[in-house]
Amino acid sequence: MMSATDPETDIIQELFAPLTLGATGAYGLQDDVAFVKDATSGIIITQDQVIEGTHFYPNDPLDMIAKRLVRRNLSDMIAKGGQPSAAFLSLAWPKSRPKSEMYRFANGLGEDLKELCGGIPLLGGDTSTTQGPLVASLTLLGTPSAPSGEPILRSGAQVGDVIVVTGVIGDAYMARMVREGIFRGTFLQDCIEFGMAPYPPAIEIAHLIGRYANASLDVSDGLLIDALRLARASNIRIDLQLDLIPISKEAEDFPDFDYLDRVDRNIMLATGGDDYQPLMAMTQESFEAFQKQAKAFDVSVTIIGQCVEGNGLALTFDNKPVDMPLSLGWESL
Amino acid sequence: MMSATDPETDIIQELFAPLTLGATGAYGLQDDVAFVKDATSGIIITQDQVIEGTHFYPNDPLDMIAKRLVRRNLSDMIAKGGQPSAAFLSLAWPKSRPKSEMYRFANGLGEDLKELCGGIPLLGGDTSTTQGPLVASLTLLGTPSAPSGEPILRSGAQVGDVIVVTGVIGDAYMARMVREGIFRGTFLQDCIEFGMAPYPPAIEIAHLIGRYANASLDVSDGLLIDALRLARASNIRIDLQLDLIPISKEAEDFPDFDYLDRVDRNIMLATGGDDYQPLMAMTQESFEAFQKQAKAFDVSVTIIGQCVEGNGLALTFDNKPVDMPLSLGWESL
Repeated sequence: MMSATDPETDIIQELFAPLTLGATGAYGLQDDVAFVKDATSGIIITQDQVIEGTHFYPNDPLDMIAKRLVRRNLSDMIAKGGQPSAAFLSLAWPKSRPKSEMYRFANGLGEDLKELCGGIPLLGGDTSTTQGPLVASLTLLGTPSAPSGEPILRSGAQVGDVIVVTGVIGDAYMARMVREGIFRGTFLQDCIEFGMAPYPPAIEIAHLIGRYANASLDVSDGLLIDALRLARASNIRIDLQLDLIPISKEAEDFPDFDYLDRVDRNIMLATGGDDYQPLMAMTQESFEAFQKQAKAFDVSVTIIGQCVEGNGLALTFDNKPVDMPLSLGWESL
Repeated sequence: MMSATDPETDIIQELFAPLTLGATGAYGLQDDVAFVKDATSGIIITQDQVIEGTHFYPNDPLDMIAKRLVRRNLSDMIAKGGQPSAAFLSLAWPKSRPKSEMYRFANGLGEDLKELCGGIPLLGGDTSTTQGPLVASLTLLGTPSAPSGEPILRSGAQVGDVIVVTGVIGDAYMARMVREGIFRGTFLQDCIEFGMAPYPPAIEIAHLIGRYANASLDVSDGLLIDALRLARASNIRIDLQLDLIPISKEAEDFPDFDYLDRVDRNIMLATGGDDYQPLMAMTQESFEAFQKQAKAFDVSVTIIGQCVEGNGLALTFDNKPVDMPLSLGWESL
C-alpha cells in the first residue's frame, strides 16, 4: 500500500494523495488499506493493465497512457451498466524514469477520474520500482444501475434482440495505423492522441445500458471478435450486417482505404479493436427508448445486427453473405 | 479482464478458473467484470505487488512467489482486523516463461487462498504478456471484524497503551541473508522457503485485532520503521524495549550473530522486514484477553513497548537507552 510517513513516499503524497479528493476510506493514502463503506447495492469490479512494450510505446506521453488505462476500465464498467465509484492503482515504476514523468502520469489519471468517471476518488493501491518496463494496473469499482442490481453480462442476449453499438467503430484503429506508419494518411494530433486513449461514451450511458440491455460488453479487441464472444456466452447466433457498422466521416474519406472495397474496409475497421464502445443486445422497443434518451448525451446508437437461433457469428454486406475473415480481432491472453 | 471464449484464453480457464471455487460473482472468469453482492458491513481493500528483480529473483520457484504475494496482502488484511473474502489478480506475464511456470504460480496462489485465507475465491483480474520481468498485483477484499465496522488504523494508539507483536521477529531476514550468501549459517530448505514467503498469523487473529487493538499495522519493512509509522500516525511516542523483541531459537543460536552483542543483533532482526506479523497498540487489559485467546490458535503475543506522550520512537535495551540506528528498515517507494 501507499504510505506517506517516509521521505521516499513524499512523491506519493504529492502526486497521488490529491486524487483521493479527501475520500474518508482512502485515509489520505497514509494507511495500509482502503475502506468502502456500506455497499448494499453491491460492487462491480473491473481490473485492467497497461504494459510498456505490450500496450504502449516507451516514448508515449504518460498522461495519455494513464488515460488509456482509465478508459480501458471505464469502458468495461459502462458496458456492464456500472456507475464508477472509486479507483485503485497498482504501479510498477521503472527506476530510470524521472519524477516529471510520474507527475505527468498522475496528472492524466486525475484528469480522467475527474472528467470522464464523474469525479471519483483514488482510494488506494501500491507503488513499487521495477528494473523492467512500466506496468500499471487499475481497479475500478462501480455501482450497478440495472433494476436487477447486478451487472449486465455477456450472456443475456435473447433470440429476437437487435445488436446495437454506440458511437463509431474503427477510428482508434486508423489512428494506430497512421501512427505506426502503416497508413500514409495524415491525421491531426488529437486523432493520434485519440488512438492512444479512445473515449468511451458518457457515463450516463451506463444507466441506459442497465435499464435496457439484455447483454453487453465493450468493443476492445475488435467488433467481430467481441460480437462472437457475446453470441457464444448467450447461446445465440448474431447475424451482423457489416454495411450498417457506424464509421466516421474520416474513415469514409480515408485515402488508404481507396484500394479496398467497402466490405474489406468495414472488416478492417471491425477487427481493429480499442473502440471502447458498448456492444449490446436488446429488444427493438428497448432500442428505441435507448436511442432517444442517448441523444441527450450526444451519443449515437446504431443497430448493426440481430440475434437468431443458432450459434456463432454470420456476416452480411448489403444482405449478401460475407466469408468470415481469418482474424476477428485481437485475441489477447 | 480474464475471458475464456478464445483459444488463447484456455490457459486462464485451465489454471485460474478453478480458483473461483464457483463463486457466482466471478462468472467463471468468462465475463468482463466481477460482482460483490451486498457488502453492508463495508469492504476493506488491500493491494500489493511482487515484481521480478525488485521483490524476487528470476529463478525463484513461482509457487513460492505467488504465496509471497498472497501473504503480503493477507498480512495487511489481518493487521487491520479484516477477514479475507475475495481476491483479484493482475498479472504481467513474461512471454519467455513457459506455461509450466504459470501452472506453478497458479498452484501456489490457489494453495494459499485455500489454506491461509480461509478458502476465498479468485473473483477476477487481468492477465497480459510482457517483454519485461514478471509483475503480479493482488487485490484482497475483506470484511471488518471490529465492533466499529471499520478497519483498525495506524492512528488509534493512545498514551498508556502497550505495544504488542505476534510471533517472532527476524526469521525472514535471517533466511534472506543465508539465501543471498551474506550469512554463512546453514538453513533447512523450508527456512529458505519461509524467507521467500513468510507466514502471517492465523486469520482468526484478525478477529482479536478487530476486538482489542486501538491501532495496528503489519511489520513488513522492519519492526522499527513500522513502529515509527504507528507512532507518527497516532501522535504518540513509542518506547520500544529491544530486549523484549521475540526472536526464534534459530536466531538465538545463529552462528553469524556470534560477533554481535545482543543489542546489535536485535536491531538487525528488528530492521530486516518481511515479518508479516501485526504490530499493535492496545490497553494492558486488552492485551491480557488477546494473549489468552490467541493461544487457541498457537499464536504467541508479546509486549515490546509502551505508548507515551511525545512523538517518534525511543529505544532501550535492559532499560538503558540505545541510539537510533542509521536505518530503521526498508523505506520503499
